[in-house]
Amino acid sequence: MATQDKMDKIVALCKNRGFIYPGSEIYGGLANTWDYGPLGVELKNNIKRAWWKKFIQENPYNVGVDTAIIMNPRTWLASGHLERFNDPLMDCKECKARFRADKLIEDYMAAQGVPNPSVAGWSDEQMENYIREHQIPCPDCGKHNFTSIRYFNLMFKTFQGVTEDSKSELYLRPETAQGIFVNFKNVLRTSRKKIPFGIGQIGKAFRNEITPGNFIFRTREFEQMELEFFCKPGEDMQWFQYWKEFCKKWLIDLGMKEEDIRFRDHSPEELSHYSTATTDIEYRFPFGWGEVWGIANRTDFDLKQHAKYSGENFNYLDPTTNEQYIPYCIEPSVGVDRIMLAFLCNAYDEEQLEDGDVRTVLRLHPALAPFKAAVLPLVKKLGEPAQQLYLNLLKKFMVDYDESGSIGRRYRRQDEIGTPFCITIDFDTLEDNTVTIRDRDSMEQIRIKMDEVEDYLEEKTQF
Amino acid sequence: MATQDKMDKIVALCKNRGFIYPGSEIYGGLANTWDYGPLGVELKNNIKRAWWKKFIQENPYNVGVDTAIIMNPRTWLASGHLERFNDPLMDCKECKARFRADKLIEDYMAAQGVPNPSVAGWSDEQMENYIREHQIPCPDCGKHNFTSIRYFNLMFKTFQGVTEDSKSELYLRPETAQGIFVNFKNVLRTSRKKIPFGIGQIGKAFRNEITPGNFIFRTREFEQMELEFFCKPGEDMQWFQYWKEFCKKWLIDLGMKEEDIRFRDHSPEELSHYSTATTDIEYRFPFGWGEVWGIANRTDFDLKQHAKYSGENFNYLDPTTNEQYIPYCIEPSVGVDRIMLAFLCNAYDEEQLEDGDVRTVLRLHPALAPFKAAVLPLVKKLGEPAQQLYLNLLKKFMVDYDESGSIGRRYRRQDEIGTPFCITIDFDTLEDNTVTIRDRDSMEQIRIKMDEVEDYLEEKTQF
Repeated sequence: MATQDKMDKIVALCKNRGFIYPGSEIYGGLANTWDYGPLGVELKNNIKRAWWKKFIQENPYNVGVDTAIIMNPRTWLASGHLERFNDPLMDCKECKARFRADKLIEDYMAAQGVPNPSVAGWSDEQMENYIREHQIPCPDCGKHNFTSIRYFNLMFKTFQGVTEDSKSELYLRPETAQGIFVNFKNVLRTSRKKIPFGIGQIGKAFRNEITPGNFIFRTREFEQMELEFFCKPGEDMQWFQYWKEFCKKWLIDLGMKEEDIRFRDHSPEELSHYSTATTDIEYRFPFGWGEVWGIANRTDFDLKQHAKYSGENFNYLDPTTNEQYIPYCIEPSVGVDRIMLAFLCNAYDEEQLEDGDVRTVLRLHPALAPFKAAVLPLVKKLGEPAQQLYLNLLKKFMVDYDESGSIGRRYRRQDEIGTPFCITIDFDTLEDNTVTIRDRDSMEQIRIKMDEVEDYLEEKTQF
Repeated sequence: MATQDKMDKIVALCKNRGFIYPGSEIYGGLANTWDYGPLGVELKNNIKRAWWKKFIQENPYNVGVDTAIIMNPRTWLASGHLERFNDPLMDCKECKARFRADKLIEDYMAAQGVPNPSVAGWSDEQMENYIREHQIPCPDCGKHNFTSIRYFNLMFKTFQGVTEDSKSELYLRPETAQGIFVNFKNVLRTSRKKIPFGIGQIGKAFRNEITPGNFIFRTREFEQMELEFFCKPGEDMQWFQYWKEFCKKWLIDLGMKEEDIRFRDHSPEELSHYSTATTDIEYRFPFGWGEVWGIANRTDFDLKQHAKYSGENFNYLDPTTNEQYIPYCIEPSVGVDRIMLAFLCNAYDEEQLEDGDVRTVLRLHPALAPFKAAVLPLVKKLGEPAQQLYLNLLKKFMVDYDESGSIGRRYRRQDEIGTPFCITIDFDTLEDNTVTIRDRDSMEQIRIKMDEVEDYLEEKTQF
């Protein structure tokens, strides 16, 4: 399947089956915002639950928090976001379109066949010179008349209180991580945890990107799942390795194909100022490899900065050795929307059947599938026992009910939205209280007792 | 217990045990923002899950969505928020403090002993006259020199793109409801639902309140759980009754004391412009009765407005009767933070024990409790079987582990954070594989087989 073709099909499926709609669509949308429909919200929630289960609930090192989106602005002074969180932008003087200089160059390089083009670490002058020397044109009008580079902060600004003066200027957080760092001492004091331990959070973040795109891959409003794992300096690279493998295992366990993910280490020039080591887990999207998970060794940068700006003491006193130190921090950070897109791409399949037909099937891990099962009465007359089973299963699982159309057509509908099991009620059910369970992937059918269905689903949808 | 005293104790418990910290605390906070700690996030998530389970998963009428916080601004023209979502504010000319005129009067009336004081429906002139005639002083400086009333919109404003011009002006949504209305046709088209059906959503909303307060009762950033239930005009008041009772039952089933909740119908003057009937479910907080759940008959107001502003056709064609109509909408809307405070107040208890001691106990419904159980080895030597049980239970539940201090002290710690079951591993465990399970509320202990613990907890923590 051509890659653009595959992407278009996924976007169309998402829109037509209620996974993802364009945001504010009736008003012509709003530049790359997206709303999650009835199936999309279930998939998204299942991803968040799977993360929380493995990173927080089952992990005896870690605890969760849920901190405010709007923080005291001194947070962004300390974190460096006010000073450094900028995009290098150029305007086309001819058509007034605005571009990121680094992206202009990287796109140009890619078009020239340079593998993994990157201008990380380039100065403004280097970028401006490159654009001039290579006569890179404006992508919109084709002319060669750019302004020089200017920087714009990526944080969304807002105002508290009723006036728009700089005194009340606030920012929507560009990452959830800082809500964790500012609460490091609170969590340490109240959770009785000892180093090493981690604090995780799922929540919205906002970045005023000039070039969002690729469906839900890059959006201005997005959701993050971040863990900040605090450890003793010197043990940081061990933990860095630990979390790299942990994240990869999480993806594989949820059905991600190993050949479609890879680690990519950041080169020294590419590393953020606070990081001594960063690895991205990349996924092979239809549009190319893209970062889905960043695992960074942030050292003691954040806690030191917050100590400096707040005047608080962030030293940790080791209760057994009596050593004092500021902990190092390993951060695995993943975007919910982006990883959801990766799971959708990973699951999307068109299967040629024996009879020549093609079926579209979302091979989602059962723990991620929006519906765990669909209850299908063979004919409408069998609606009563079918409804009874349906309402009973709803107490435990998200379950669909469908009585319209041929059974084959109903199977296809469920395949397309990733429902792992179809439960068919037929006339034998009335005789012996058994039902047919059809497996989405193998299309094989087994017959089991009606009162065993719940345990069957429970076992098969575990994560 | 004095009411202020009770509130102070709850706030202190929340802060000291990791439920709720002041937001950005190391920077001196940020006017009434709050961060949820390791126990708070679990309680909050459990409340959201309990809502989703009863309102979406188990309810065959309803589906969920998750729409963007930042919407096309025409949404707020259509909804009326740009025009009407304002507070009437007055400044004290002497000390420059700013107040809501309606609150000034209502607080004054309450101090005079007027029961349920309300100025709903008063004109600006009426309010200004009342303040002058009753010589209501500035609460900050005591002087009598207010400006006249001016209106300020409650929506947080931000800017997309890199310029701060009005063309790119956007708003943080003041309610999640509009994200549902603008997707009404998308959901109808893709979910195969028929009227009556509902669309629910949990998500953040923002209101630039001049007077937030009472801990997490009123905050500028908050989370809502809203259902918009669409029905045939004429059947709306039946469904209004249905959802009133449904919401009340949800609260009662989760352990809310019936004597501490009440319905309060809005008087005709108090009704919003779009509503023909609204009832609040109020909870008796330590600081007085406060609204926790608003159930409103919004009629066809919202869909009609969006039809008008978008040019889309919002008519529903009844597939059996062929009637066409714009559906009516019943909205039960509850704030997560606010209902969490109600559950905390409802659960907080100080119990006088036989030996004269007082224990603090959070009698939270087991489905809401942050930890479902705590595993406590009687002595540290028993750590190995205890750890084994603990790690095993973590696969299913949030469970705590505590081996420090006397067993009595450990019970108290768990009581105070609402853990419904304490599982003690003692020397008999090594002999016969049994453990003691202590009930938080009755303090009674039973002895069961280690391998029955999981099923025991599963059954006891159901909702």
